[in-house]
Amino acid sequence: MTDPDLTELTEVTGRIGLPDERAQADARVRQGKLTKPAGALGRLEDLSIWLCGVQGRCPPRPFERVRVVVFAGDHGVARTAMTSAYPPEVTAQMVLNFLSGGAAVNVLARHNGASVRVVDMAVDVDYADLGATVPADVIAHRVRRGSGSIDRDDALTRDETERAILAGITIANEEVDAGADLLIPGDMGIGNTTVAATITGLLTDNDPATIVGRGTGIDDETWMRKTAAVRDAMRRGRTHTGDPIALLGAVGGADLAAMTGFLLGAAARRTPVILDGVMSGAAALVAHRIAFRVSSWWLAGHCSTEPAHRLALERLGLTPIIDYELRLGEGTGALVALPVLNAASATLREMSTFDEAGVSERDS
Amino acid sequence: MTDPDLTELTEVTGRIGLPDERAQADARVRQGKLTKPAGALGRLEDLSIWLCGVQGRCPPRPFERVRVVVFAGDHGVARTAMTSAYPPEVTAQMVLNFLSGGAAVNVLARHNGASVRVVDMAVDVDYADLGATVPADVIAHRVRRGSGSIDRDDALTRDETERAILAGITIANEEVDAGADLLIPGDMGIGNTTVAATITGLLTDNDPATIVGRGTGIDDETWMRKTAAVRDAMRRGRTHTGDPIALLGAVGGADLAAMTGFLLGAAARRTPVILDGVMSGAAALVAHRIAFRVSSWWLAGHCSTEPAHRLALERLGLTPIIDYELRLGEGTGALVALPVLNAASATLREMSTFDEAGVSERDS
Repeated sequence: MTDPDLTELTEVTGRIGLPDERAQADARVRQGKLTKPAGALGRLEDLSIWLCGVQGRCPPRPFERVRVVVFAGDHGVARTAMTSAYPPEVTAQMVLNFLSGGAAVNVLARHNGASVRVVDMAVDVDYADLGATVPADVIAHRVRRGSGSIDRDDALTRDETERAILAGITIANEEVDAGADLLIPGDMGIGNTTVAATITGLLTDNDPATIVGRGTGIDDETWMRKTAAVRDAMRRGRTHTGDPIALLGAVGGADLAAMTGFLLGAAARRTPVILDGVMSGAAALVAHRIAFRVSSWWLAGHCSTEPAHRLALERLGLTPIIDYELRLGEGTGALVALPVLNAASATLREMSTFDEAGVSERDS
Repeated sequence: MTDPDLTELTEVTGRIGLPDERAQADARVRQGKLTKPAGALGRLEDLSIWLCGVQGRCPPRPFERVRVVVFAGDHGVARTAMTSAYPPEVTAQMVLNFLSGGAAVNVLARHNGASVRVVDMAVDVDYADLGATVPADVIAHRVRRGSGSIDRDDALTRDETERAILAGITIANEEVDAGADLLIPGDMGIGNTTVAATITGLLTDNDPATIVGRGTGIDDETWMRKTAAVRDAMRRGRTHTGDPIALLGAVGGADLAAMTGFLLGAAARRTPVILDGVMSGAAALVAHRIAFRVSSWWLAGHCSTEPAHRLALERLGLTPIIDYELRLGEGTGALVALPVLNAASATLREMSTFDEAGVSERDS
């Protein structure tokens, strides 16, 4: 079957290359000349070498435009299986909170020289009903009101899935065209950890009881409902694990599909990404199935308390920068990690070398 | 025996109180009202509560003046027992590097709105011999040229020990008087991890082979010499473990004694501190023996690869913010951790509450 939309996806994934090995090698050499014992900056040195690779230069440049894109969407499973501690209308309310700058992601972005864009991929609301108006670009990419209840129905049609993935690619392109040199995928959606757990369970071969966490802070009874919903959804999704796009349609959601496209689009543009929480972990697993080189462009910002997140990062071979028991999503964990990357960048760029400072090198 | 100098130390330690419990309680309540699931910011929430306690207010204020004080000193043991990978003259060279702004601590301070003060407590140099001049305040507190070789001699006389401790208190007072609202003790000194390991071994009841690490990156043979030196020094110091001041004189050093005084002086002024590496860990153990409440005013910035550091933090009950395999000292680990504390502060101060944002709270 010819599918014109997939031509663009194939073209994008074909453009995903590897970071610059020459710049990485230069970074290793430069680390050895700085006025400190070799290796004394520990993992900061590894980060600085990665950064030179993705920027294609050594020393690395300071980031000029760090953008968080929050992919918001509702998930039918939160309503039908009651898997969250919060009512579904919180998704829309939080979109408005992001737009007015009061959420954690806004605060952390402000303090780290980053800015936040909110994209409503499938929030189940008419904002007018809340007496609110949102900028047109927030809802420009919405593919439907609420993704389907994945424990019993497909999340999206094939057409919706493709539109959502392509929207993510478009958004990545828009951001890079506007000068973004570091991207962070954020998420907001009541029920989205149920979806992330399902996808992660399927792509890491773990069973529901292993991967389902407490999400926003659910009690034991809700955890049992959530685990049952994930079990049902995994049963529905299992036949699609060989086809990432079908998988997103069966047991994903518009937000997750868009985030997957965003990760692929960013890598195709050679733009580094700091992953955030369990949603970006699930999207990363899917994107990695589509184009395995994509993970070279990522850092894991943090590891959340959601078991699915740790398992996804292990599968991807990513070591989190921060392990701080965050479980908020939105992009917050990546933003807490950002200054550590900046520290790695600054030390490699600005420290004096032994020669410049007239400091003796180690005894031979 | 009446010792007039200890009157000041006793007066300072007597003024060390506990952080403000009321402000901590207010912080806990406020965390519950912010637009996020309770606990979703993980350890950031704990940090924010600690910060309100030490600042005595909720919400916390942004830091206005963060100061790193690098305590520099040489240690005879580096020369006599050859315990380092670097020649002792590097200490003085690095002091000059700090003054010209090219060291890692300078770079990280610049990027975090902090500033660096260097205090030469016992560097074994006449800067004129290097063709250099240093500002008078850098050497104003020097008690001697190089602390003694602790594997065979006392590091300091009783008088030198007291002068060094009081210098640390004076420096803390000067910094707080000049507006510092967060202090970071840094260190520079070839051989200082040998001293830190000795003190930590004695105060945590661990044997030399357990606590001695690779310092600046020593080889196996140097590690064996270092471990033997620590064994000899621990034997010399063991009779003094009940008298922290005598201990500093026997097997410490002028930099370590000053850092101990600095930690006590900061707490007496109700000023929070982020500890850095293995040297500040050792000083923290000594200060805690002198006045146990002092540790309420500390965060552990990071945990280095030096075994003595992890053991010191465990004994003090402090969980490091960053565990990143840093082993540079200077204050660098604390500076890498600083943005995490700032993130904790900013979220508690600036996030919207559920009421303000019109977001529904969790289902009852």
